[in-house]
Amino acid sequence: MAVITVIGSGMMGSAIIFPAADNGNTIRIVGTPLDRAIIDHARATGEHLTLKRKMPEGITYYQYEEFETALDGADLLVSGVSSFGVDWFISEIIPKIPESLPVLSVTKGMVNTENGGLISYPEVYEASTDKKISFMAVGGPCTSYELADHDPSEVTFCGRNIEQLKWARSLFEADYYHVSVSTDVRGVECAVAMKNAYALGVALAIGMSYEREGREFEHYNSQAAIFGQACREMTRLLDVCGGHPSNLALGIGDLYVTVYGGRTRKIGILLGQGMEFDKALEVLNGVTLESIVISTRTAKAIRQQIEDGRAKAEHYPLLLHIDELVNGGKKVNVPWKAFETEFEL
Amino acid sequence: MAVITVIGSGMMGSAIIFPAADNGNTIRIVGTPLDRAIIDHARATGEHLTLKRKMPEGITYYQYEEFETALDGADLLVSGVSSFGVDWFISEIIPKIPESLPVLSVTKGMVNTENGGLISYPEVYEASTDKKISFMAVGGPCTSYELADHDPSEVTFCGRNIEQLKWARSLFEADYYHVSVSTDVRGVECAVAMKNAYALGVALAIGMSYEREGREFEHYNSQAAIFGQACREMTRLLDVCGGHPSNLALGIGDLYVTVYGGRTRKIGILLGQGMEFDKALEVLNGVTLESIVISTRTAKAIRQQIEDGRAKAEHYPLLLHIDELVNGGKKVNVPWKAFETEFEL
Repeated sequence: MAVITVIGSGMMGSAIIFPAADNGNTIRIVGTPLDRAIIDHARATGEHLTLKRKMPEGITYYQYEEFETALDGADLLVSGVSSFGVDWFISEIIPKIPESLPVLSVTKGMVNTENGGLISYPEVYEASTDKKISFMAVGGPCTSYELADHDPSEVTFCGRNIEQLKWARSLFEADYYHVSVSTDVRGVECAVAMKNAYALGVALAIGMSYEREGREFEHYNSQAAIFGQACREMTRLLDVCGGHPSNLALGIGDLYVTVYGGRTRKIGILLGQGMEFDKALEVLNGVTLESIVISTRTAKAIRQQIEDGRAKAEHYPLLLHIDELVNGGKKVNVPWKAFETEFEL
Repeated sequence: MAVITVIGSGMMGSAIIFPAADNGNTIRIVGTPLDRAIIDHARATGEHLTLKRKMPEGITYYQYEEFETALDGADLLVSGVSSFGVDWFISEIIPKIPESLPVLSVTKGMVNTENGGLISYPEVYEASTDKKISFMAVGGPCTSYELADHDPSEVTFCGRNIEQLKWARSLFEADYYHVSVSTDVRGVECAVAMKNAYALGVALAIGMSYEREGREFEHYNSQAAIFGQACREMTRLLDVCGGHPSNLALGIGDLYVTVYGGRTRKIGILLGQGMEFDKALEVLNGVTLESIVISTRTAKAIRQQIEDGRAKAEHYPLLLHIDELVNGGKKVNVPWKAFETEFEL
């Protein structure tokens, strides 16, 4: 049993405490300054405003001003900020936490470096401070709604210390929440970040099918063709990032679940129907999308590597097309032929 | 342009000639003795009885007695038999064809050998005859309906001779049918056969979700967990078969499309709802399923390798559970915890 404090009461930061609360841990949820309404609502009703689920009993809720109180005696800090909150986490939270408090972050994403590399958020956190804080992270296919609904989920906790990862697992593991552990932080985070970009790619085929059929009718051959190409390109990107190839299974499972979920699917369908990106963003009310951020950053890194002769454009036709759509004002024109391979033993 | 004769007028044998006919090749379709009604119907109406699509113009249809006429001057024989017709193909067709006539087979599957190995149908064909016939095969995610409907599809032609594969590609390649080529016959065929077993595995999670919800409601975290585990086990099986790891992308794309299709999904859902296999077969009117054959054969090979100490049971928990359901009279009980991994750099 442990005291677990969560900073950032968004959907995933809140959903991940379901198994931890079921296991009898003490849970404290702290909202960011953007989460005020979520905290007020949870205090008043016991429900989560955006997750739209009854929260487990016995949780204590805190507004951001009370963060330091919520840290008192905590054994683990869960970071529930989205990738758009990473800078805030670095400037506001890391300075406030003691070295002895390990962090488990649910934030998915990668950052491209100056020389065309890609690194994970735990690495960004480590580089941001002189403190020797242990930054762990959660990867793998797990949507917040379904976790809250106890659908059996498999995730991976990654970090530097395998014994600490196993301890963290012991707090969260439940019959509906299964946890692998890995010290390959870059590999895990790369695999699960990439899937956001490629889920948009698969959704293009759904939009193209709608457009061709003149109705919301899905074909799967074309989705499968893009899914397979995503598998090829993710394998290469894992290698470029220096991640172990076994992490591909994490990214593939996560790609599968992301094709069915939310806004990435929606914008992919609109682009697949031939809409321009700016127009599609308007239709979706200008929501900010992690899939857009990750595909942009990854494409930027790969384009730089191509320029330097370290990577080949023909190895990433899908990623580069997604980038053209998102950042180049182009309309959908999937390079099917570029997905063909010739393999001689 | 070439003369292409098809033996076996089932759905895939017939669908694959759509791009070949569009390219101006001469197409002759010959029914097996089981296909009599399909040939009669096509002759009378120009439509395919089970594919339920208008066939391309200009095809000549033959009953099985006319097979030798249909072979006259043919440049390529397409084998459209299902895996249940493989023995018939070996005993009836191979003796009738000249060595100079290359074969392109759409049949997917693997055969387990006495010593716990798994080999592909092209290898089985090669071993069945002294003739030096070139047996090529088609792998990759492609359902017959969607190919007939011109949904963009990506497949792989595999065989021993890369130049002949490129020639075959030139007959079929179209803007909705893209063809990779590979001389890794075992690798391609293994990857695309396995997906039948694992698609049944993913569908278990759909049935479990229906059962838990008391209605036809899908959760995706649990499907993704099984999809990811399928990716791990397929990677290992590819290695066991001696296939190149790059073929995984083919199997993964094919797994994606198979989860959405037909009878494998249906029986997986029934098993996932807690039904016993015999009962589920009754519900599905005792249809014979390629997914059952391939999971049984693969499990048999792997169990033999485990006995001999050449493989580890903990590397195939999903396959072995599917085998228990199909051949062991067990009820669904997905070994989620066995999917967990511990990875230390």
